[in-house]
Amino acid sequence: MKLSQRIQAMQFSPIRKLAPYAAAARAQGVTVYPLNIGQPDIETPETFKNALSSFHEKVLAYSDSRGLDVLLEAYRSYYKGWGMDFEKEDLIVTNAGSEALTFAMTAICDPGDEIIVPEPFYTNYNSFAALAQAHLKPLTTKAEDGFHLPSKEAVEALITERTKGILISNPGNPTGVVYTEEEIRMLTAICLEHDLTFIVDEVYREFTYDGLKFFSPFQIPEALEHLILIDSVSKRYSACGARIGLIASKNKELMQQVMKLAQARLCVPTVDQIASAELFSTDPSYLEKVNKEYAERRDILYAALKEIPGVICEKPTGAFYIVVKLPIANAEEFAQWMLTDFRYENQTVLVAPCAGFYATKGLGQDEIRLSYCIQKAALQKAAQVLRHGVEEYQRLH
Amino acid sequence: MKLSQRIQAMQFSPIRKLAPYAAAARAQGVTVYPLNIGQPDIETPETFKNALSSFHEKVLAYSDSRGLDVLLEAYRSYYKGWGMDFEKEDLIVTNAGSEALTFAMTAICDPGDEIIVPEPFYTNYNSFAALAQAHLKPLTTKAEDGFHLPSKEAVEALITERTKGILISNPGNPTGVVYTEEEIRMLTAICLEHDLTFIVDEVYREFTYDGLKFFSPFQIPEALEHLILIDSVSKRYSACGARIGLIASKNKELMQQVMKLAQARLCVPTVDQIASAELFSTDPSYLEKVNKEYAERRDILYAALKEIPGVICEKPTGAFYIVVKLPIANAEEFAQWMLTDFRYENQTVLVAPCAGFYATKGLGQDEIRLSYCIQKAALQKAAQVLRHGVEEYQRLH
Repeated sequence: MKLSQRIQAMQFSPIRKLAPYAAAARAQGVTVYPLNIGQPDIETPETFKNALSSFHEKVLAYSDSRGLDVLLEAYRSYYKGWGMDFEKEDLIVTNAGSEALTFAMTAICDPGDEIIVPEPFYTNYNSFAALAQAHLKPLTTKAEDGFHLPSKEAVEALITERTKGILISNPGNPTGVVYTEEEIRMLTAICLEHDLTFIVDEVYREFTYDGLKFFSPFQIPEALEHLILIDSVSKRYSACGARIGLIASKNKELMQQVMKLAQARLCVPTVDQIASAELFSTDPSYLEKVNKEYAERRDILYAALKEIPGVICEKPTGAFYIVVKLPIANAEEFAQWMLTDFRYENQTVLVAPCAGFYATKGLGQDEIRLSYCIQKAALQKAAQVLRHGVEEYQRLH
Repeated sequence: MKLSQRIQAMQFSPIRKLAPYAAAARAQGVTVYPLNIGQPDIETPETFKNALSSFHEKVLAYSDSRGLDVLLEAYRSYYKGWGMDFEKEDLIVTNAGSEALTFAMTAICDPGDEIIVPEPFYTNYNSFAALAQAHLKPLTTKAEDGFHLPSKEAVEALITERTKGILISNPGNPTGVVYTEEEIRMLTAICLEHDLTFIVDEVYREFTYDGLKFFSPFQIPEALEHLILIDSVSKRYSACGARIGLIASKNKELMQQVMKLAQARLCVPTVDQIASAELFSTDPSYLEKVNKEYAERRDILYAALKEIPGVICEKPTGAFYIVVKLPIANAEEFAQWMLTDFRYENQTVLVAPCAGFYATKGLGQDEIRLSYCIQKAALQKAAQVLRHGVEEYQRLH
């Protein structure tokens, strides 16, 4: 069978590549702390399961391509709480944030068009871009700067005739950065001046710490026509398995066109939509508690990382990730070695090497991404194991 | 906002275009028989809902990108019943048949590559092809021939250097045709001789009538490396809202590459997978009863259609559709007129005009597709209303 060039050019998930080594270590009876993926361990609100049990339709029918009204209404009132005013026509429910991103890129890019993205960025952006035949143009940010943005001039230097938009994840995966109001206003101004679309992936909106206020370009009225919002219930309500996301925009022409993509795949699963709508009625104390929990975990992990000689990282202020520069040349080799060779009191740690999060070749090779989606006591132990691992690896290499 | 050329070039669903006119008629108190879409009215097996109620995981987590083991195993043993032997590695669960088709086209086509498809074909094939930047090359089939295939030479005449595969829906949407073993062997032979991939969309596998035996190219051992199977629980178990489909192939290299696409969107909804796995344990009498019901409906509809002077159609032998050539020049205008102007005893019928099911411009303009997804008594009335509509329209035009 002749396979397409483009599928062969796509990358396998760099995060999932180490899974077999982790499985082998576990099979040996080793405790492997999973700091590699963003799978929250937080309990999903009961509201989801309750809605499942009370599903009583006789025929599990197609729903509307835009999404079920009950979910669209839940989203609308949720956004009102954030000062964002959406009509039903501004929203289309998607198969998680993944499909929303594919829709957005397909809607603004023809093959070969470019989207500027701060790197390191969520690795699957590469896959969605490959599918849309779009080219991601990296705007390099650095561990030393806490992954904040460079100057307006540095961003503008990347703009070409093929540039169609700027895409950010805010709060950021994999960096944990929360962009300041000034940074968001700077990117917005660039989009308005150069007639670009600003795609904002805000799935971690609730996860900002230290009393930091989250700022969205949707708070800038004159920008609205230029904005696309990507959202999902996955992280917010620890409902990754629901695969319920959203694409939203006040640009009517865009949303009319995106409806073609939505109609092509007919609709999103019915029961997940009904149950996800219920998630939005979860008591606000749930999200407050979750936020506090993540902030405490971040403090534990960050403090422990700072104890490791030679490690460079700034304290992240959002999401549940941190990118760490190690005093090690090849983080991918190190990550594998941790699973195959290193044990500390019969424990080891599974981390995500960062090279795959960069589009610029050669960057991120000494960096790893850690997520803090495990309990505090385990996180403390994992950090200790990592420290011993780094020290041992340095001794041997 | 600048939108991409390609999204603007995509079509809106020709089936859903008439929905507002139907809604307006209903708002006037008119009974509108929906013969336009393939939304079964058959009850979904209780097994699905029971599985939903018994979902008790604390965290609704991501599942494996390939799909949950319980569902993969259910599929495997289902196919064993059809004499098809799949390993777990040969299967990837998808967001319904839609995603499976997008995956298949993306895997075998680079932009500009061609896939041969008998027309009329399922309109969304156009959208998936547009997304994959693939070109669908129509192999015209005719109402007069019951939409069976032309000669091997006619198929081969369409092959160019860019041809990568042949795609069929069998039993056919929108035609209701069930290809004979000879036809399937002929297409398979062409694929083997010209090194093409044969994509078979068999979501209506159970729906063949008159004791007809369904034949799949997966029954031809030497073809296996060249085949891609598209499947879905939507029609089989009247579970369109579950959005659970499958892509399957014995070609290991293909499935490895398709896994990249599956990893990019992480996974398919967890509870729909669990509940869909249960569907396969539905008592076989369920499918027998459904099959009998559809066959009876087909008989009613076909008999009534043959009563309409000037109508051309062969008795379809599968799925739950029939394409009918009307003695009317513009079926799209007729379909709209039925909703806006025509009433028979305060009833009318919603049909799907067929032009959108053809890739060749100008074809299908005098044809409509009817689905028989309503109760027999209603179907009888709908056919009577349609007959009066055709006669009245002819008088007026």
